Amino acid sequence: MKNVKVVSYGVGVIGRRLATHLLTKEGVKIVGAVDINPDIVGKDLGEVLGGKKIGVIISNDADKVLKETEPDVVCHTTMSYLRQTYDQFEQVLRHGVGIVSTCEELGYPYATEEGTEYANKLDEVAKKHGATLLGTGINPGFLMDTLPTFLTGPCEEVESIYVTRQMNAATRRIPFQKKIGAGMTEEKFRDAIDGGKITGHVGLEQSIRMISDSLGWELDEIRVDPPEPVILDHDAASDAIKVPKGKNAGTKQMAYGVLGGKAVITMDFRAYIGAPEEYDTVDIEGVPPIHQKISPCVHGDHGTIAMTTNMIPHVINAEPGLKTMVDLPVVHATPVHFGKYIKKR
Amino acid sequence: MKNVKVVSYGVGVIGRRLATHLLTKEGVKIVGAVDINPDIVGKDLGEVLGGKKIGVIISNDADKVLKETEPDVVCHTTMSYLRQTYDQFEQVLRHGVGIVSTCEELGYPYATEEGTEYANKLDEVAKKHGATLLGTGINPGFLMDTLPTFLTGPCEEVESIYVTRQMNAATRRIPFQKKIGAGMTEEKFRDAIDGGKITGHVGLEQSIRMISDSLGWELDEIRVDPPEPVILDHDAASDAIKVPKGKNAGTKQMAYGVLGGKAVITMDFRAYIGAPEEYDTVDIEGVPPIHQKISPCVHGDHGTIAMTTNMIPHVINAEPGLKTMVDLPVVHATPVHFGKYIKKR
Repeated sequence: MKNVKVVSYGVGVIGRRLATHLLTKEGVKIVGAVDINPDIVGKDLGEVLGGKKIGVIISNDADKVLKETEPDVVCHTTMSYLRQTYDQFEQVLRHGVGIVSTCEELGYPYATEEGTEYANKLDEVAKKHGATLLGTGINPGFLMDTLPTFLTGPCEEVESIYVTRQMNAATRRIPFQKKIGAGMTEEKFRDAIDGGKITGHVGLEQSIRMISDSLGWELDEIRVDPPEPVILDHDAASDAIKVPKGKNAGTKQMAYGVLGGKAVITMDFRAYIGAPEEYDTVDIEGVPPIHQKISPCVHGDHGTIAMTTNMIPHVINAEPGLKTMVDLPVVHATPVHFGKYIKKR
Repeated sequence: MKNVKVVSYGVGVIGRRLATHLLTKEGVKIVGAVDINPDIVGKDLGEVLGGKKIGVIISNDADKVLKETEPDVVCHTTMSYLRQTYDQFEQVLRHGVGIVSTCEELGYPYATEEGTEYANKLDEVAKKHGATLLGTGINPGFLMDTLPTFLTGPCEEVESIYVTRQMNAATRRIPFQKKIGAGMTEEKFRDAIDGGKITGHVGLEQSIRMISDSLGWELDEIRVDPPEPVILDHDAASDAIKVPKGKNAGTKQMAYGVLGGKAVITMDFRAYIGAPEEYDTVDIEGVPPIHQKISPCVHGDHGTIAMTTNMIPHVINAEPGLKTMVDLPVVHATPVHFGKYIKKR
């Protein structure tokens, strides 16, 4: 079994965690790394990850890296929106190299008109160059879209789907805790929302559309509410941030897929310091009803690293084009030599 | 959108429920029915289902039905083992018609040497005639195999997988309650096991192998224990069967996938009258750990009907050959016009 050659495109927080994980896996070889951060360009990836040199120098020239290393796949972890990542994807695809990306909007780009236009162009480029492109991750990518879609499988009828993710932000990275406005006054939180400094969770619209398209529901509209503050009636704290009673502990955000005036798909996303319980639930009203709970909730960073890694074989094995999680076979863990999961080369 | 033309092959308990469901669906047309039961051959399927005539006469001549009706797919619900169903599958495939079957062993035939031989032959016939063949259902087919496989997706590492299905048999069909020996004395139950009258759940071996093959684990062995009685310390009853204290209420059965002397995959199947709670759980020890529960457990008959129905589009859309649930895209419900899910014809 041959090694799978990977280029890490993006050496930020998630890119570093992903590369660190890939280095532990038998049958994977990181052959190149791309980033534009001047602090790390020219440095050895292994050292940037806090370990020994591995002979991979981080470059800001993606074309050069791809040409020299001829990877089997690119793991892409740069930004959330296709208007930011489109050129990066196109550049990689022109080398005939497949991509697994954590770009949230790529998870189901058909949610918006703009996304659909990018998706159609990417699909064309991918097919022309014989490469496969996939957006995945834990959310979007699994918990609030692929999983609820899959759980409708045993249903003869489906009336509605309600998906909740509740996280205690205290257990997450500090930048994440700050991103959700933990510790702010309610007024400051609302100002941050109005000023676009707090943007809410990216992907709710995409997740709803993946479910509705899979089920064939032609929604009247998708409504994504702005994030709301979570004001606790008691003190709470993480290692980094104190949230006294009356202050904001994080965010809750709702999104709805509406059909015939009714919310047939509901997304209920809550991330705040001091959440009493962490869980992911899917509740399907139908025949039969399905009430499912994962408790504690799936850890976001581990989950994203795993999903990205575990979809690499499916992307290498797939037909060329832009795919989504509902186009490819079911994801699963890859605990043995990575080459074992590759069917064609 | 055109209707999807279906032939019902097997008009027993599950076949009837399936046909009844298909008749409620927009965009599905049952064009033929096959069974060997002399009590129903020559009768109208609609009347056998307890309703009005639908102009479909149940025939014992599969070749004739397939030739005359040219269906898009056959829904097959006859027997559990490939030695019983192989000839039926081959006959249908030779007409170039795809099959979705509830044959338990077909769900993952590679669990045994005999099954693998049948599978290889069926794959060859299917490819030669441009048809796709799939075994599915709720269990095997979803709860104890495809679902746990899928739930390892967010895992960087997997140590072990424990799957439980606990059903209160009182809520199930009376033949099922009898099949599990409810109401027997422990002695009679053990005699029935020894005499092969109670065979236990079919599919545990197949479910374990689907998971281990997906994850790439080369198991030392799969061990399926014989069914054990469930003796309650209190009285219990269903509408049909009384289970006084000390009598047998049903069965519990364990199966293990062993690697390095350790049970890395465990199946824990319990079906008995008076079970205090009904649930399906998947517990994955790994990074991150995943603890998942569906409560109440998914209703077996509804689930099997739904899985069989909902996989029809995937089978019609798939490349020719013998497929399993982990080869095809994720299953999902099909609540709108069935033709909408068909990509190619």
